Amino acid sequence: MSIRVGILGYGNLGRGVECAIRQNEDMELAAVFTRRDPSALSILTESAAVCSVADAPAWKDRIDVMILCGGSATDLPEQTPEYVKYFHVIDSFDTHARIPEHYANVDAAAKESSHVGIISVGWDPGMFSLNRLFGNALLPEGKDYTFWGKGVSQGHSDALRRIEGVKDAKQYTIPVESALEAVRSGENPEFSTREKHTRECFVVLEEGADAAKIEEEIKNMPNYFADYDTTVHFISQEELQTKHGGIPHGGFVLRSGATGMEKENRHLIEYRLKLDSNPEFTSSVLIAYARAAYRLAEEGQSGCKTVLDIPPAYLSAKSGEELRAELL
Amino acid sequence: MSIRVGILGYGNLGRGVECAIRQNEDMELAAVFTRRDPSALSILTESAAVCSVADAPAWKDRIDVMILCGGSATDLPEQTPEYVKYFHVIDSFDTHARIPEHYANVDAAAKESSHVGIISVGWDPGMFSLNRLFGNALLPEGKDYTFWGKGVSQGHSDALRRIEGVKDAKQYTIPVESALEAVRSGENPEFSTREKHTRECFVVLEEGADAAKIEEEIKNMPNYFADYDTTVHFISQEELQTKHGGIPHGGFVLRSGATGMEKENRHLIEYRLKLDSNPEFTSSVLIAYARAAYRLAEEGQSGCKTVLDIPPAYLSAKSGEELRAELL
Repeated sequence: MSIRVGILGYGNLGRGVECAIRQNEDMELAAVFTRRDPSALSILTESAAVCSVADAPAWKDRIDVMILCGGSATDLPEQTPEYVKYFHVIDSFDTHARIPEHYANVDAAAKESSHVGIISVGWDPGMFSLNRLFGNALLPEGKDYTFWGKGVSQGHSDALRRIEGVKDAKQYTIPVESALEAVRSGENPEFSTREKHTRECFVVLEEGADAAKIEEEIKNMPNYFADYDTTVHFISQEELQTKHGGIPHGGFVLRSGATGMEKENRHLIEYRLKLDSNPEFTSSVLIAYARAAYRLAEEGQSGCKTVLDIPPAYLSAKSGEELRAELL
Repeated sequence: MSIRVGILGYGNLGRGVECAIRQNEDMELAAVFTRRDPSALSILTESAAVCSVADAPAWKDRIDVMILCGGSATDLPEQTPEYVKYFHVIDSFDTHARIPEHYANVDAAAKESSHVGIISVGWDPGMFSLNRLFGNALLPEGKDYTFWGKGVSQGHSDALRRIEGVKDAKQYTIPVESALEAVRSGENPEFSTREKHTRECFVVLEEGADAAKIEEEIKNMPNYFADYDTTVHFISQEELQTKHGGIPHGGFVLRSGATGMEKENRHLIEYRLKLDSNPEFTSSVLIAYARAAYRLAEEGQSGCKTVLDIPPAYLSAKSGEELRAELL
């Protein structure tokens, strides 16, 4: 019997989850829930229903795990504690500072309804968090480094688009190669914000906009760009679409540490992701943790969990015997 | 209260565990057990006892977790099922093909005595296995690659030393950089054994030995060298000690896969270890899993486990709250 999955929210992430389900034989998409008019929404999976979010609770016996594909700013803080009343749920809540509060809310609701809710699933938070944890646990006397990119930052691209005179824009976050090399060499350097990442902007101007003034405004924008070496390129809308249409991302988690009585031996752990599509990879992670939620629930567990709490074997469709024989 | 750790077997790995314990404030070394004469063994930790292995069972109420530091060929298949009768145990059993059998033996003994035994802990099997599992689960339509090195292979160095006329020797396994690059580029290549790794040998000859004949013998040795491009350097004993005295190792686990309806988006996951000391890093992993064994036991669990079964948070001395706030 397949794990019956629901998708709530059909943007880039929801579509990614839909595609990811097709790569996992033990899963099927039961329904997509949307805030739009369901009759106007066309999805890729013929066998799945398209429903209004208002109807979601009525599906509580026909869906095993609901993947919540909304945003972290306003959607998930409301949705995850709400829908865990009806389903086991997975979300990709990524506002790091608010995770403890979100965890508490989801945990209370999940325990009351005897469901499992796994929050903050994806790659950061998610796979990067796991690698920070492993690094800290294996090399207690060491130092952590997380670098992001090369990839598109949605928040920074949005900030560019809010500038008067900017028609469209895309921003890439780029790790500084020499900083990565310094970490790999075992120097345990301290970096300023500027030394770790650069920012590259591709901007389409409105007719008659003042390029020099806009470039100044970008480079001095507090929080977003002022603390970085920022490059601005003005290009046409056509070039933006053809050359910068994707949503690549990725990054590096490194742990550099020492062992031995005199700390005489140095070690480096490096984890790297290089992703053509940020939402599709995040979706793949969500689906693997949906399987884990289903298994934890089968064992009778409930409450809020994060990637740090999940036995890795629960992510795989294979049995413990198969994993030990083939992959350990 | 500290977790009281015992070490059984005081070679490179046992000494590494002793050093690793000092980096973890929640642990203390209670005793080292040796097959040698205990009075002839001097250890680095003044507060710890040195005992004969024969006395180990008498320590069953004074040690929480016993780390078994013997070899996989003959020691661990006997020791792990035996000592799990008295203690929670951790081993680094690394004969991949015999893991299912070892698991079954340890599981039966552990369940009968209500102890936890975590087997095959280290980096391969161990952290590399975890990364193969994550890669397979997150990118089901993809391909795995494991590369080892640059590092010293104990088995291959031993094979060199068994050759008549060889006084001493060290062998390095080296991943082929162009093969790594081909994987990173997303080509999903198929490799022969020769294409993935090269082997470099540093050999000290006995007086009057025939270098050309020995080089031939090395390069044609079945299983060990015949399938590889092998380089042989003849050096002095002094040079071997000064330049090749360490036990570095490491390697790469890569997963290359695709997502999207038409598999149009490619992704790469790369995990890399670069270790100055193979036994000391392995020891650090053993200690982190000793903490996990202790916690699982506190929860009332028993039986045989592997790294694939352990919730990552159990490796850390920090609480779930701290981990979520600081590191997720």
